[in-house]
Amino acid sequence: MTFTDKLKEITESRNSLLCVGLDPDRNKLPNAMKDDPDALFLFCDEIIRTTRHVAAAYKLNFAFFEVEGSKGWDALERIVKIIPPNVLKIADAKRADIGSSSEKYAEAILHRLDFDAVTVNPYMGADSIKPFLQWPEKGAFVLGLTSNPGSRDFQHLQINARPLYKRVIKEVVRWNGNQNCGVVVGATHPGDLEGARNLAPDLPFLIPGIGAQGGSLKAAIRYGTDADAGMALITASRSIIFKSSDYDFAEEAQKEAESLNQQINSFRTQKQSALLEI
Amino acid sequence: MTFTDKLKEITESRNSLLCVGLDPDRNKLPNAMKDDPDALFLFCDEIIRTTRHVAAAYKLNFAFFEVEGSKGWDALERIVKIIPPNVLKIADAKRADIGSSSEKYAEAILHRLDFDAVTVNPYMGADSIKPFLQWPEKGAFVLGLTSNPGSRDFQHLQINARPLYKRVIKEVVRWNGNQNCGVVVGATHPGDLEGARNLAPDLPFLIPGIGAQGGSLKAAIRYGTDADAGMALITASRSIIFKSSDYDFAEEAQKEAESLNQQINSFRTQKQSALLEI
Repeated sequence: MTFTDKLKEITESRNSLLCVGLDPDRNKLPNAMKDDPDALFLFCDEIIRTTRHVAAAYKLNFAFFEVEGSKGWDALERIVKIIPPNVLKIADAKRADIGSSSEKYAEAILHRLDFDAVTVNPYMGADSIKPFLQWPEKGAFVLGLTSNPGSRDFQHLQINARPLYKRVIKEVVRWNGNQNCGVVVGATHPGDLEGARNLAPDLPFLIPGIGAQGGSLKAAIRYGTDADAGMALITASRSIIFKSSDYDFAEEAQKEAESLNQQINSFRTQKQSALLEI
Repeated sequence: MTFTDKLKEITESRNSLLCVGLDPDRNKLPNAMKDDPDALFLFCDEIIRTTRHVAAAYKLNFAFFEVEGSKGWDALERIVKIIPPNVLKIADAKRADIGSSSEKYAEAILHRLDFDAVTVNPYMGADSIKPFLQWPEKGAFVLGLTSNPGSRDFQHLQINARPLYKRVIKEVVRWNGNQNCGVVVGATHPGDLEGARNLAPDLPFLIPGIGAQGGSLKAAIRYGTDADAGMALITASRSIIFKSSDYDFAEEAQKEAESLNQQINSFRTQKQSALLEI
């Protein structure tokens, strides 16, 4: 089964496009947990326990593990193992290097750690991305248009009257021979989501920028999903996992995840009925 | 002391622009070592021991450590500690993410691991790079023009009749308020090195693509160094560390490093005497 088919099957059978971002910033963890040497694992374990019934995917942000060195990597290795098999595991690692190095990153993340997919940076071109696409059942989400202010610096530069990020998305469509490419398109630019979707009608979109980053959920569903209101993952991290920083963090994360998934599905139903207006 | 000053002092006092790339691919290690659980550390330790007298910098390629998981990170943590204090430690990690995540990568690499500098990817723009530039004594080499075939896919796209990579280099010059920015410019495009140097006459250049990747050393010195034939690091990895895959690997690496440094310095002397012709 290709990665695209797997994503389709999981989002449909679980009726969820929700991707819960695990960004376990130690400074923001509940006080009772903050000083535990194994806090990153303990925190994510609790979050997974209370959100696994609504999540289509978990996205682990490598920065928050690497900052704790080899112990952080050890926590990451254990967390990926406790994610249920019918939920996608996405490595938010933003890797890419010359081919021989990308081979090793791909092996590290998609095989050794056994993630289903990884986020990758397109700047170095095709041969820096191809190693992540060699196994059809494993996928790569290529950065197209990101959700941060700096996305204006280069991604919007005009090349023959079209922004760079559209050129990137067009290339990604060409790289999709194994049906395992996706793109990252931030919801903080809802007007741009539509153009991106037109270029790649069938590709999985990973859509960050909801919640803490302030993007519009409605626009993300309207323009970011495919014609059937699917084939996208809506990611939210801080707004879920740090909803409460007290002893009830896991329960509050559960409520927030359930509520967000409900909103997503309500907008999807409206889109399917052609009732969703912006 | 700013990172740029530190690089200048080290390259001048050691009379070396040589950056030895540590890419310890386990499959390529000497047979006697290959199966040792701690092979990555043992191999790099030997290479550092025999090349430290000629190296201005060591560049650790994170891909080859991450592929061994938390044990690989543990090896990396120990290797960075045995690099002599008067030699630069460069993390070839090609990181960058939204600001709050880049903060963690910067903390992980420049503080926790105590590297002097890190390679970063510009695609996500200024706020994804700035966290790596917050400490003047620590530096970041931003990918400008890379040495792989895929550099043609996006880096050479024309924006107002100038390639994207030149736009990136111009931005990097603007980000250099703390005197700690550098750029990566591959030696596989010698014709482009001159244009890059014209845009950034005073910035440190990290120049890969010599050796295994086939770039011209002469052109790298002629066009990639500054007006005084300095302010650049010429990196070579596989051509040094895997010169021999037998018991004599460390001695052969030493000979190769010494020979390369001699060639570099000979071209520098010619450039300083205005005798270097391509």
